[in-house]
Amino acid sequence: MDEKEKYVEELVDLEDDYSKWYNQVVRKAELADYAPVRGCMIIRPYGYAIWENIQGLLDRRFKETGVVNAYFPLFIPRSFLEKEAEHVEGFAPEVAWVTRGGGEELEEPLAVRPTSETIIGHSYAKWVQSYRDLPLLINQWNNVVRWEKRTALFLRTSEFLWQEGHTAHRTLEEAEERTQMMLEVYRSFAEEDAAIPVIAGRKSENEKFAGALRTYSIEALMGDGKALQAGTSHNLAHNFAKGFDIQFLDSDGQRKYCATTSWGMSTRMIGALIMVHGDKSGLMLPPRIAPYQAVIVPIWRKDKDKEVVMGALERLEKILKGKVRFKTDVSENTPGWKFNEWEMRGVPVRIEIGPRDVQNNSVVLVRRDNRAKEIVSIDALETRLPELLEEVQQAMYQRAVEFREKNTYYTEDYEEFKQIIAEKRGFVRVKWAEDSEAEKAIKEETKATLRVIPFDQPEGGVKGKCIYTGKPATCEAVFARAY
Amino acid sequence: MDEKEKYVEELVDLEDDYSKWYNQVVRKAELADYAPVRGCMIIRPYGYAIWENIQGLLDRRFKETGVVNAYFPLFIPRSFLEKEAEHVEGFAPEVAWVTRGGGEELEEPLAVRPTSETIIGHSYAKWVQSYRDLPLLINQWNNVVRWEKRTALFLRTSEFLWQEGHTAHRTLEEAEERTQMMLEVYRSFAEEDAAIPVIAGRKSENEKFAGALRTYSIEALMGDGKALQAGTSHNLAHNFAKGFDIQFLDSDGQRKYCATTSWGMSTRMIGALIMVHGDKSGLMLPPRIAPYQAVIVPIWRKDKDKEVVMGALERLEKILKGKVRFKTDVSENTPGWKFNEWEMRGVPVRIEIGPRDVQNNSVVLVRRDNRAKEIVSIDALETRLPELLEEVQQAMYQRAVEFREKNTYYTEDYEEFKQIIAEKRGFVRVKWAEDSEAEKAIKEETKATLRVIPFDQPEGGVKGKCIYTGKPATCEAVFARAY
Repeated sequence: MDEKEKYVEELVDLEDDYSKWYNQVVRKAELADYAPVRGCMIIRPYGYAIWENIQGLLDRRFKETGVVNAYFPLFIPRSFLEKEAEHVEGFAPEVAWVTRGGGEELEEPLAVRPTSETIIGHSYAKWVQSYRDLPLLINQWNNVVRWEKRTALFLRTSEFLWQEGHTAHRTLEEAEERTQMMLEVYRSFAEEDAAIPVIAGRKSENEKFAGALRTYSIEALMGDGKALQAGTSHNLAHNFAKGFDIQFLDSDGQRKYCATTSWGMSTRMIGALIMVHGDKSGLMLPPRIAPYQAVIVPIWRKDKDKEVVMGALERLEKILKGKVRFKTDVSENTPGWKFNEWEMRGVPVRIEIGPRDVQNNSVVLVRRDNRAKEIVSIDALETRLPELLEEVQQAMYQRAVEFREKNTYYTEDYEEFKQIIAEKRGFVRVKWAEDSEAEKAIKEETKATLRVIPFDQPEGGVKGKCIYTGKPATCEAVFARAY
Repeated sequence: MDEKEKYVEELVDLEDDYSKWYNQVVRKAELADYAPVRGCMIIRPYGYAIWENIQGLLDRRFKETGVVNAYFPLFIPRSFLEKEAEHVEGFAPEVAWVTRGGGEELEEPLAVRPTSETIIGHSYAKWVQSYRDLPLLINQWNNVVRWEKRTALFLRTSEFLWQEGHTAHRTLEEAEERTQMMLEVYRSFAEEDAAIPVIAGRKSENEKFAGALRTYSIEALMGDGKALQAGTSHNLAHNFAKGFDIQFLDSDGQRKYCATTSWGMSTRMIGALIMVHGDKSGLMLPPRIAPYQAVIVPIWRKDKDKEVVMGALERLEKILKGKVRFKTDVSENTPGWKFNEWEMRGVPVRIEIGPRDVQNNSVVLVRRDNRAKEIVSIDALETRLPELLEEVQQAMYQRAVEFREKNTYYTEDYEEFKQIIAEKRGFVRVKWAEDSEAEKAIKEETKATLRVIPFDQPEGGVKGKCIYTGKPATCEAVFARAY
C-alpha cells in the first residue's frame, strides 16, 4: 500500500464499526497482512517489532523465575497426541497433518504442533530419572498451527507465534505453585508493560485446557466491551506424566509421577494492545512496548530554515541515542501528514522541532494519549523525555482501568444480566454455583461465556444464590462476550 | 541421562573416531537430542542458550545495516514453489507436504517452508509500488523443514532453526552490494564472535542456490579436516522478481523489476563451534558465545570450611553479576567431577575458591583453552576476568587459524590433489578454469567439492593451467570434503 492509497480510505470511527476499525488499524499501521494461505498471517516489521519487545520483556521475567529456553520439534506423531484422551479430543479437529515427505507417503501422519505438551512429555520422561533432576523449567518461543474456520489478524489465525512453558515437579503442590507463579508473571507483564488491566483467576471446567486439572487465565476488556483471554497457565497434575510415563525416583526410594504445568502467551497480545488502547486516531502504544517511543518531526517552510533544523536534528539524535527508541521522519511528506501518520501508528510522544525552536534551544513534546504539549529545553530532554514516557505509560494504564471499571457490572438478576450482555457488553460479575450445565445454557441464551472465577473473592466467602440455578453460590464469577 | 549414566561411557578420543566424539559431545554436553520424529532434533537448554547468543549477536549486526525483522507463514502453496523453475527443481524432493487440515483434505497441498523466497516474493509484489518503497530489508528468525535421508544433530536435520534475510532493490548493482555486505556480516560474526576463521568467496555454478544468479558463502574447516559451509548470501537478480512480479515505478516513469537477495545462517553454526574448537576434553566455547563465560567451583574438605567458602561465594557473585555470564556449581558432586563436567561443556574460565583462597582474598582462574592458571585477588576480579575472557577469545581464534593454515594445501598436480583429499583432508587450493563438468568429475573421483572461489585471489590474476582440464586457469578455487 503506498502512501496515497493508504489514505484514500479514511479510518472509520471505532464507535461506528469496531471490527472494521480494528482491521483498518492493523493494515494502515502496517502491523500485519493476510497471507495467501487461508487463515495465516504475515507479521510486518512494525508489528513484529512490537512482538520483539513483548518477547524481550516476558523472557526476562521468565528467566528471573529460573526458566530456561529450548526448542522441540514442529512435528508430532499422531500416536503421541492420542496418549492423553482429553487432549486429543480437544485438539484433533484443529490439526494440520503432514502426510508426505521427501517424495514418499509417511507411514504415520505427523501433526503440525497445535501445542507441545505431548512431544515435550516424551522428552521429559527420558530426562528425568531422580528427584535431583527436578524441577524442569523450560520455555520455547515458537509457531503453532490450529486450523481455524473464522480468522482475524492477531486474534485467531491458523498459524500464530507464542511461547509455551512446560515444567515438571516433584509434588502436586509445587506444580500448583508454579502454575500460579507464571499467571502472576503474565499479570504483571500485562499491567506493568502492556498497560492492560486484567482479572486474574481460574477457568471453569468447561473452559479449561484439554488435559488440565486446572487452568488459570488473565482476562482483559477490549474497547468494544468484549473480553479477551490474554494468557493462560495450566496445572496438568499427573495427567500428562501418566500418558508419557514421566516418573522419578524419590528420596524415599519410591518411583513417582511428576506433576507438570504449561503456560502460554501469544501474538494475540498485539490484538489486545490495539483494542485496549486504540482510539479514533488509530493505534496507541504503551511506551514500554512501542517500537518507537518517540518520533522526531522536523518542521520548516523556507529552504533556508531547513539547514538550521537539520543541524539541530543531529544534536537531538545524539542526545537520545541509547536512551529512548526513536525515529526521525525526514521523508518528503508534510509535517501535518507525519503527525497523522505517527499518531495512527501509535507512537507515544512526538518531538516537533522548527526554526524557532532551534533558536530557543528547545523542542515541543506532544503526547499521543492526551495531546498535551510542552516545551522542553534541548538540554533537559534526556531527563524529561524518559520521565514523560513513564507518565504516559501510567496514564494509559489508568485510562484502561477507568474504562474497565465503567464497563464492569454487578447483578443478581438474570434478566438484567441478559440485558447488559445484549446492550452494553462489558464484564458482568455474578454469584455462581459452578454448574457446567448452567454455564452452557447461559452461553446458548446470551453468547456470554464464563471468563474467569477471580482470585479476588469477597472476604468471608460468597453468600446468596447463583444467578442462574438459584443454588447456594460458591463463588463470584465474571461473564462476558469474548473474542 | 543422569549423572552416573553420562559417565559410564567415557568420551572417545576425537582422533580415534571423530564422528562418535561429535555425537558424544552433543549428547554429554546436553546440547541436543534426537526427536521421536525421524530426522528432527530437540535443542536442549544449554544448546539453545548458545543459539540465543548467536541470535543476539547476529541480530544486532543485521540491524546496524538497516535490516528489520518480520514473520511470514510456515505454509507455502504448491503453486508458489513452481513459479521459479530452478527453485522448485532444487527443493521439491525435500519438501514435507500438509494435505489435511481441520478434518478435511486440502484442495492444494501446502509445503512446509524449506525456505521462504516464494512466499516473501508474493508479499513484496504487493508492498512495492514505487522506487520510494525501496530498498526492502527484512529478516526472519524461524524454523524450516527439508526432508533429509541422512541426518546428524545440528549439521543436517529435517527441521532446523535459522534466519533468512530477504531484500528488494532498485538496481542489480545495489542487490549485488547488499549480497556481499551480508556475507561480510557473516564473516565478521564468524571470526570475531564465534572465533571461527572462514574463507569468504563465491560458489560455483554447480553449488549455488536453486534460483540464484550468484551465491557467496563462508567456509570453515572442521577439526577432522572437512569443510563446513557456515553462511550463504544469494544475489537472486531478477529471477524471483519475474516469477512473482515484483515491480516498481521508477523515477523515470518506467515500470521495472526489483533485484532481490536472500541470505541465511542456521543452527549448523553450533555444529561448527563444536568441531572447530572441541578437543579431547569435549566442547570448548568462545567467551562471546558461551552460555556461561565462567563457572565458580567452591572447594572444601571439612564442614567448617564450607561456611567460610559459601560466604565468599556470595561476595563473588555480587561482584560478577551483570558483568559476565556465570554459574555457581553448588551441587553435591566432587570438585573433580565439576572440573571435568564444565570442561566437557566448554565453559571458557573456571573460578576455583577454597578456604585458603578466602583467607588470601583471592581466587584461582583456570582457562579452558590451555589450562593456564592464575591467582587473582578478589578485588581485581571484575577487571581481570573480562580481560582474560577477551584473551581466551583471541587465543581460540588464533588456534583455529593455525589449525586451518596447517591443513591448507596448494597443489598444481591432480594426483597429489587426490592423495591429499584421501589421506589428509583439509582445504586444497588449486588453479581452476570454472568448468562444471570437471567439477562433477572431481566430486565423483574424490568426493571433494568446490567449496568456494575465494575473494582473495592472486594479485594481477591467475596464471597457469586448471588442475583438472589443463585449460588456462581463470581463478584459484578451494576444494575439500565437506559436511
